[in-house]
Amino acid sequence: MRFISKISGALLSLSVAGGMATTAAAQQGQAPLSAEESDPRVMGWMVGSPPPEDKIITQPDSVYFSFPRLRWSVCHLREFLPTEEISRGLGAPVPLSYLPPDQLGEYADEIDALTFTPMNSDEEMTWEESLGANYTDGLLIMHKGRVVYEKYSGCLTEDGKHAAMSMTKSLTGLLAQILVTEGQLDETARVIDIIPEIEGSAFATATVREVMDMTTGVKYSENYADPNADIWVYSRAASPLPKPEGYTGPNGYWEYLQQVQPDGRHGDEFHYKTINSDMLGWIITRVTGKEVTQLASERLWSKMGAEQAAYQTVDGKGVPFAGGGLTAGLRDLGRLGQLVLNGGVINGKRLFPAEVTERISQGGDPSKFLGFPTMPGGSYASQWWSFHNDHGAYAARGVHGQTIYIDPTAEMVLVRFASFPTAANGRIDPTSLPAYQAVAEYLMSKD
Amino acid sequence: MRFISKISGALLSLSVAGGMATTAAAQQGQAPLSAEESDPRVMGWMVGSPPPEDKIITQPDSVYFSFPRLRWSVCHLREFLPTEEISRGLGAPVPLSYLPPDQLGEYADEIDALTFTPMNSDEEMTWEESLGANYTDGLLIMHKGRVVYEKYSGCLTEDGKHAAMSMTKSLTGLLAQILVTEGQLDETARVIDIIPEIEGSAFATATVREVMDMTTGVKYSENYADPNADIWVYSRAASPLPKPEGYTGPNGYWEYLQQVQPDGRHGDEFHYKTINSDMLGWIITRVTGKEVTQLASERLWSKMGAEQAAYQTVDGKGVPFAGGGLTAGLRDLGRLGQLVLNGGVINGKRLFPAEVTERISQGGDPSKFLGFPTMPGGSYASQWWSFHNDHGAYAARGVHGQTIYIDPTAEMVLVRFASFPTAANGRIDPTSLPAYQAVAEYLMSKD
Repeated sequence: MRFISKISGALLSLSVAGGMATTAAAQQGQAPLSAEESDPRVMGWMVGSPPPEDKIITQPDSVYFSFPRLRWSVCHLREFLPTEEISRGLGAPVPLSYLPPDQLGEYADEIDALTFTPMNSDEEMTWEESLGANYTDGLLIMHKGRVVYEKYSGCLTEDGKHAAMSMTKSLTGLLAQILVTEGQLDETARVIDIIPEIEGSAFATATVREVMDMTTGVKYSENYADPNADIWVYSRAASPLPKPEGYTGPNGYWEYLQQVQPDGRHGDEFHYKTINSDMLGWIITRVTGKEVTQLASERLWSKMGAEQAAYQTVDGKGVPFAGGGLTAGLRDLGRLGQLVLNGGVINGKRLFPAEVTERISQGGDPSKFLGFPTMPGGSYASQWWSFHNDHGAYAARGVHGQTIYIDPTAEMVLVRFASFPTAANGRIDPTSLPAYQAVAEYLMSKD
Repeated sequence: MRFISKISGALLSLSVAGGMATTAAAQQGQAPLSAEESDPRVMGWMVGSPPPEDKIITQPDSVYFSFPRLRWSVCHLREFLPTEEISRGLGAPVPLSYLPPDQLGEYADEIDALTFTPMNSDEEMTWEESLGANYTDGLLIMHKGRVVYEKYSGCLTEDGKHAAMSMTKSLTGLLAQILVTEGQLDETARVIDIIPEIEGSAFATATVREVMDMTTGVKYSENYADPNADIWVYSRAASPLPKPEGYTGPNGYWEYLQQVQPDGRHGDEFHYKTINSDMLGWIITRVTGKEVTQLASERLWSKMGAEQAAYQTVDGKGVPFAGGGLTAGLRDLGRLGQLVLNGGVINGKRLFPAEVTERISQGGDPSKFLGFPTMPGGSYASQWWSFHNDHGAYAARGVHGQTIYIDPTAEMVLVRFASFPTAANGRIDPTSLPAYQAVAEYLMSKD
């Protein structure tokens, strides 16, 4: 893995998007350190001037993004990688609304005491226990537009930021859906009609909508045991570091996308493949003439009262990673979720048409959605996940436990940052999704 | 230079600090492109999705930080390098005070029309002509606490940020002087008494004050023709990228500092050597337990009403580059300059004792200050430059034309960001320092 250890950076986001990141403990069948044991402050990462040699976290990403180090690194990605800012502009932030202090304490106590039954389990768990079980770094719950619950742990503080991982896709999808709804982007157009140089790629004949919903028939294997698997080619292409001597592969996300091979028929099935999100990022940039970071700033961050700038990692040509590069503050993702729940309105201002939220929340076709045991009957549309449950919940989701979970029935927005030892959300959903449902029902009982 | 092209990053800041950056045109004796011709918008850098191959700016720094590309890159360093944020906190920015709009226009016209005689010249130049001659990207002038002049050009906008280069040293020096004045740092202590592991280094026996004033006797050669020159060793040590196979040199700023050899006697002479600033950064961090970025946020950025977070580049172990890594907004450096001029008070709040400004503005010993033809009789103290002129002016200065120029007699703070083709300020001072004096006299005439 010597070569891989050198390409760093891109590998991080790609590997964790795909679920590669594992721990030595997990590989050996041991239980990983608990949330308490692996708390970065307990581990003592990066404390000291300099820290002891074994407490320094450095490149490559196989080091800095492996558990338990990743519990520190999720709050510090820019210290390892080149990034672009998503500017919040220069105005004053608009503080979030909160319950009155006494009620806030009451809600916190009651929510912590809530019980639920994890999937595939007979034993009840309290909400408070789920925080540790899920290696939670930050949790914000808003009900009817007011914060009712807010906790920071691990590496995160209220003025810190955390990797959003594949929740980035939902930001990219939201921007795309705004452009579609406003008529700037034709969802029925084929990619080649927008980006002629995609001609030789399987993406050429896909429609924008198929890219948005990840129903394209494109070859992208994530078999980590195969050194020629597409994930490695993509990683090398996406690395922001100078390419190794003799490197002849694609350079950057966009060059990679131009040589993607077909696999199946467009429109038939949903397959969760990150390259769709980067294809969508390219489409957005071609149509608007703006990078996704700039558009996210202009349309969202600078207008929603954000309190922190966010940022996105970039490839070696400065293209933001539209499939996984976002890092942001907890409350700012609360603002984003609230904006979506509110149908485009926040702080009395309309930022996009209500139809954008309608389209996202309506979800995709569940018959095309296979292979996600913790989300039976779900779907994926405009880069957002739909549960198609009683409450009509939908979500942005990222590996290691990131979510913006929106429950329109309960008028609830829940944002969680986490650093679960393994990447795949299928491992974290059992102690998460039933907990969200429990808190939604609790909030509805308070009405 | 193949190896050097791979280490990138650190080299940038070090080379430009030392004045290496030159242009192909300059090497061939041709005049470089004018400010207008080399304007990044005219050059078309990074425009398009993707930009044409010859308009993409990428690693290594020998590419991205060579003129004319550097005119774009000075606003985009984080897109090439790992960085740490200097947080502005979560509160509302405090807008700067401005002259009333009609007066602002009047002042702008009058300042643009001011004339001065550049050093070593017989021909007068107008202030407005000097903007182009100096490849100015941003210029802010405050008089008695109010903005009287503000211009953005090149790559810079009001919500953008620009590399501060060696002005970073003055931020580091300001933090150190605050600690000294407040009694947290003993300026008479020897470095070894604070950092025992510096034992084998020439820095061990220097006092904190000698480090602050760069009067240490330490070997640090910047002979770019010599592949074994210290600048290259420092560059390789400082690079945030994974070290090349077989690399056995120091890793990071602090390891480098531990093996610095002596050259002359401490206290005898001022020699402008960046390693002093990084030594000072280490001292600050050891004494406070905080990185310079964190301290800059806590003491300055989060308390002075800053409107943007700033950032600092880091080495491979996450140590911020205290000698050159800062990037910030133009107005925020105006706030910083005003804070210093005001003796530690801004927006009615005292952030540090008035003695800090007294010590900085008093300067160092001019008899130890040699080899700066454009600053005869000057000095360097606490990492700030003193002119010892009639007005008692002092400044933060960075290569390629960066300055915070403080004239206490005229009650003027002038901040300039620039991207002059060559690094050394000796080339830019002739059309800068007399211009500053002219505008200071103009402002005094308005009283």
